Amino acid sequence: MEAKRFISTIFFLFLLSKSYSLPHPKKGARIPCKRLAFYFHDIIYNGNNAKNATSAIVGAPAWANKTILAGQSHFGDMVVFDDPITLDNNLHSKPVGRAQGIYIYDKKEIFTAWLAFSFVFNSTEHKGSINFAGADPLMSKTRDISVIGGTGDFLMARGVATLMTDAFEGEVYFRLRVDIKLYECW
Amino acid sequence: MEAKRFISTIFFLFLLSKSYSLPHPKKGARIPCKRLAFYFHDIIYNGNNAKNATSAIVGAPAWANKTILAGQSHFGDMVVFDDPITLDNNLHSKPVGRAQGIYIYDKKEIFTAWLAFSFVFNSTEHKGSINFAGADPLMSKTRDISVIGGTGDFLMARGVATLMTDAFEGEVYFRLRVDIKLYECW
Amino acid sequence: MEAKRFISTIFFLFLLSKSYSLPHPKKGARIPCKRLAFYFHDIIYNGNNAKNATSAIVGAPAWANKTILAGQSHFGDMVVFDDPITLDNNLHSKPVGRAQGIYIYDKKEIFTAWLAFSFVFNSTEHKGSINFAGADPLMSKTRDISVIGGTGDFLMARGVATLMTDAFEGEVYFRLRVDIKLYECW
Repeated sequence: MEAKRFISTIFFLFLLSKSYSLPHPKKGARIPCKRLAFYFHDIIYNGNNAKNATSAIVGAPAWANKTILAGQSHFGDMVVFDDPITLDNNLHSKPVGRAQGIYIYDKKEIFTAWLAFSFVFNSTEHKGSINFAGADPLMSKTRDISVIGGTGDFLMARGVATLMTDAFEGEVYFRLRVDIKLYECW
Repeated sequence: MEAKRFISTIFFLFLLSKSYSLPHPKKGARIPCKRLAFYFHDIIYNGNNAKNATSAIVGAPAWANKTILAGQSHFGDMVVFDDPITLDNNLHSKPVGRAQGIYIYDKKEIFTAWLAFSFVFNSTEHKGSINFAGADPLMSKTRDISVIGGTGDFLMARGVATLMTDAFEGEVYFRLRVDIKLYECW
Repeated sequence: MEAKRFISTIFFLFLLSKSYSLPHPKKGARIPCKRLAFYFHDIIYNGNNAKNATSAIVGAPAWANKTILAGQSHFGDMVVFDDPITLDNNLHSKPVGRAQGIYIYDKKEIFTAWLAFSFVFNSTEHKGSINFAGADPLMSKTRDISVIGGTGDFLMARGVATLMTDAFEGEVYFRLRVDIKLYECW
């Protein structure tokens, strides 16, 4: 009788250990190992705001120029940016880091973008960077891009970032809320 | 005697559980958790095809312009694209999504490219995006780039995509076959 | 008494197997599964060096041109490169591969860059590619970017690459040392 009890115990423990070792539990069951939310603020150069601009058009199609965003949903405009990251939605709050990289407008019919950039942190709370890439169909309320890596505090990070346009003023200023969910953390 | 039997059983189970928990079995043993194949179609703007073009040169070196692909294997040309994705090799098939991002030509002596883009799906079968990056030595019959992430149905995806030039017509149209092998799926 | 001994053994083994199955041991405990160091050499086109140049400005802001790096810390300049990779710091050593991709200068106040590129190997020692992306605050002695993927010998690679500026001559030539630490290998 004892023998049977032991065998069941062993099997129970084995099953437990197996479930622990599954590298990818079901989607619904996954909880982020780290969750962070930030805002970043983009002021694009338009010929009149050299001092305040945090970004500039650096590539444009043959039919456009680099001072005014192109027609046809800005298709083909490529922008380099160095935008302040804040904890709240106030442009004038103390930045906790910089969002640096590129975005392009990539569709003629509607506004869509594609992003590749880093969050570079220099706050007391976070040291290191998070790297992002992905499509941003910016007419949707929320859009997901990938966290493709990280360094420092975010070494080997992977996950997803949900973008929301928090403000959009003319064609000069926009503010994005970025809700980062990391599913791989160290 | 029973005791010995139990100990061997335990060890056997332990070894089993250990092999299950190894995060990275040998390369030869790996089978993709998801495999997908698509075609995408690129029609580059050349000054005369504004209506049909799905891509445009937006960056070019000092010695070139943005209407005609540059000499020296198009070195330095940077292209933004929004290309239809189809299930077969017919440009006029119903698109299941869009390939959006950039490619650059990056070598003077021969044709090579570098790609960073997303597949954005809007079909009944797939919702979400797959993000890619990598070198494309396009004179080779097959070239591998990385799947660096995904969203929606492809959340946390990683793997490799094998590119094949399926058609190449003058310097206006090309069609790539993309064979996606995901080794990390949720 | 035997029974108790068995139960402790089982628990001991279970705990062991659990620790093996933890996907991410503590940061300090992690040792790279592969470590590689290379140099790459960038000679930017400046109007006078068409023959030797390995890179060229292909995007620039409205206030700049594509022959001379822009003022304000070259903010907005986007460069396409195809640079030789060597094992030592000698530009004239036999290349073991090519570094191909883009970098941008992305801050007005100081020199910082953002990189997205691949190491493409064609040596007897390495076949395949390693893909990188990340912020490069190039005034720092060492900077970390992410290894976001790989192909061939480096299939499914992930990790970090530490960049060091090994030489910087005028605004024409620089040499970076790249210390690659992969934490996911196949």
